Amino acid sequence: MQTPTLRDVARAAGVHAATASRALNPETRNLVNAQTARRVLRAAESLGYRPNPIARSLKTARSHTVGLVIPDLTNPLFPPIVRGIEDTLGPAGYSALIVNTDSDPARERSQIASLRSRQVEGLIVATARLEHPLLAELRREGVRIVLVNRRTDGLDVPSVGPDDAVGISLAVRHLVELGHREFVHLAGPLDTSTGLNRARAFQSALREHGLDEDPARLVACEHWSEEGGAAALRRALDSPVPFTAVVAGNDLIALGCYDVFAERGIACPEEVSVVGFNGMPFLDKLRPPLTTVAIPHHQVGLEAGRMLLESVKEPDRPARSVLLPPSLAVRGSTAPPAPGPVAGAR
Amino acid sequence: MQTPTLRDVARAAGVHAATASRALNPETRNLVNAQTARRVLRAAESLGYRPNPIARSLKTARSHTVGLVIPDLTNPLFPPIVRGIEDTLGPAGYSALIVNTDSDPARERSQIASLRSRQVEGLIVATARLEHPLLAELRREGVRIVLVNRRTDGLDVPSVGPDDAVGISLAVRHLVELGHREFVHLAGPLDTSTGLNRARAFQSALREHGLDEDPARLVACEHWSEEGGAAALRRALDSPVPFTAVVAGNDLIALGCYDVFAERGIACPEEVSVVGFNGMPFLDKLRPPLTTVAIPHHQVGLEAGRMLLESVKEPDRPARSVLLPPSLAVRGSTAPPAPGPVAGAR
Repeated sequence: MQTPTLRDVARAAGVHAATASRALNPETRNLVNAQTARRVLRAAESLGYRPNPIARSLKTARSHTVGLVIPDLTNPLFPPIVRGIEDTLGPAGYSALIVNTDSDPARERSQIASLRSRQVEGLIVATARLEHPLLAELRREGVRIVLVNRRTDGLDVPSVGPDDAVGISLAVRHLVELGHREFVHLAGPLDTSTGLNRARAFQSALREHGLDEDPARLVACEHWSEEGGAAALRRALDSPVPFTAVVAGNDLIALGCYDVFAERGIACPEEVSVVGFNGMPFLDKLRPPLTTVAIPHHQVGLEAGRMLLESVKEPDRPARSVLLPPSLAVRGSTAPPAPGPVAGAR
Repeated sequence: MQTPTLRDVARAAGVHAATASRALNPETRNLVNAQTARRVLRAAESLGYRPNPIARSLKTARSHTVGLVIPDLTNPLFPPIVRGIEDTLGPAGYSALIVNTDSDPARERSQIASLRSRQVEGLIVATARLEHPLLAELRREGVRIVLVNRRTDGLDVPSVGPDDAVGISLAVRHLVELGHREFVHLAGPLDTSTGLNRARAFQSALREHGLDEDPARLVACEHWSEEGGAAALRRALDSPVPFTAVVAGNDLIALGCYDVFAERGIACPEEVSVVGFNGMPFLDKLRPPLTTVAIPHHQVGLEAGRMLLESVKEPDRPARSVLLPPSLAVRGSTAPPAPGPVAGAR
């Protein structure tokens, strides 16, 4: 198809191509007489002229593209974060290229190499582990990185995520107020900051409320998934530690508990209460509706996009971390503990 | 940061830059002596050379990028489709740029213009309406388009989606076998092929089973959403038509019914049965677990990606449509109707 060129626009506006180019670029428009600029813009519009950002990106070394590295888009945590990121990038003229790593380091490495070969101006990374040599290596090579949801030890880059400690303490306090004294925490993988921070916050909360801190009350899941949560709850139930309340590392882990409740005939919340973390969609329609620590994920995405754009504009600005405040959504999966013997004791 | 250039690779391999370029491009590698090609590839690897696809795309007029136009990524229908598309495009060296239109035609137009200015090689569109002048216009301009999930009247482009007619007939037959005789269909918007096809399939199924076909048994929702479904069910309940079974246009519409059941104290499935459409995640954990027509959405995405790549390689191949077979997932939201007065009759 025949598309109009810069030269066509210049001819229609009766100006030199260089003038048309300056008028069409928002960053150089003020170098051109205002009336001339308007004439060029009108000519461009009536011809249906579209600037070629690929040609422009070669000149300016700017692709106006950002790489978005997530574990798996089908985890309901990520779509609202991705929308938030795109809602910030879009109006700024940037687009995101999304890759899914399935939490596989080899896949992550090749996906990031592919993003870099497309000249992305930075990476927004939601797959960070506490030890993450690849991210440190990218950082040393000067790649702009914003971490979302999770952080990496010793990596001086901006990050945005939920305030894990506040979230867990809200969950534990709610359960204590209902009368629970015997807790377990089904933690996310402890090689992630979210897994570790929530586990530490759980232990602090037990201490604060003067509750039993037996290390067996903390069971780590292999994955942030229903299967991971189900396996961890089975281990907790088969351990000698009694409990009436489960603080799950995230909502998927809590959903895995529902499967085990069905499997072993445990009534929730009558015998065991459960609290999730994240506030993914449709939790209010579950059986029972899941009490959860709700995180404003769209806002997490907005902030992450904003931070990346800032790091493009001001590369020397010191890194900062944004923690977004959680709130507790109380629903049917939490209730006062029943008198009598408790789960794990059978 | 200093990145190695093609010239550096050529120097390290002891060949001309043109030879190195041919050796590095899989499409021209066979023009180079095999041993030389290996030497170039080894040199490229040891230097950490990455080809610059932006520069290459200017030469070949190929961006290796595809635009993905969806209503809203936070609708749980789309993440598995998007993953399927990316699982096809990635290994072929293509990436997808996703835009969310929120079903707003003005937003869709500007988002598509932005994708085109990035030289996408084609569009995968999930926002099609039956009358869609913008898509017809793009098609006339030679833009490659694959429609996913929905179709447009008179537009000769490939499409992939669920077999709506088979899906609805599975749902109605299941309800008839349970003993239901009085149905309503809460249809999706009738300006979409999915809305219209499922509504027509519903009417055919009533006819086939010899059931009452009162046009009031078809209530169209304004949006494919929980709110749209809730509003439509309220209208059906306030109409004089009695019913014991609801065939919802999709799962979100069915979830909207759950809200109205709670609001009006209607027991599901004891008083009214509901069937959804799509099989989005976590339906098995709802209260009650939702019976639904399940669609293999990851496969829908795989097929859509494959079709777009084919249309890039063989632009003259005639368009074809792929319909993927649905299956019925029977759960707790459907049961035999109770004897006595029925919903809508009160």
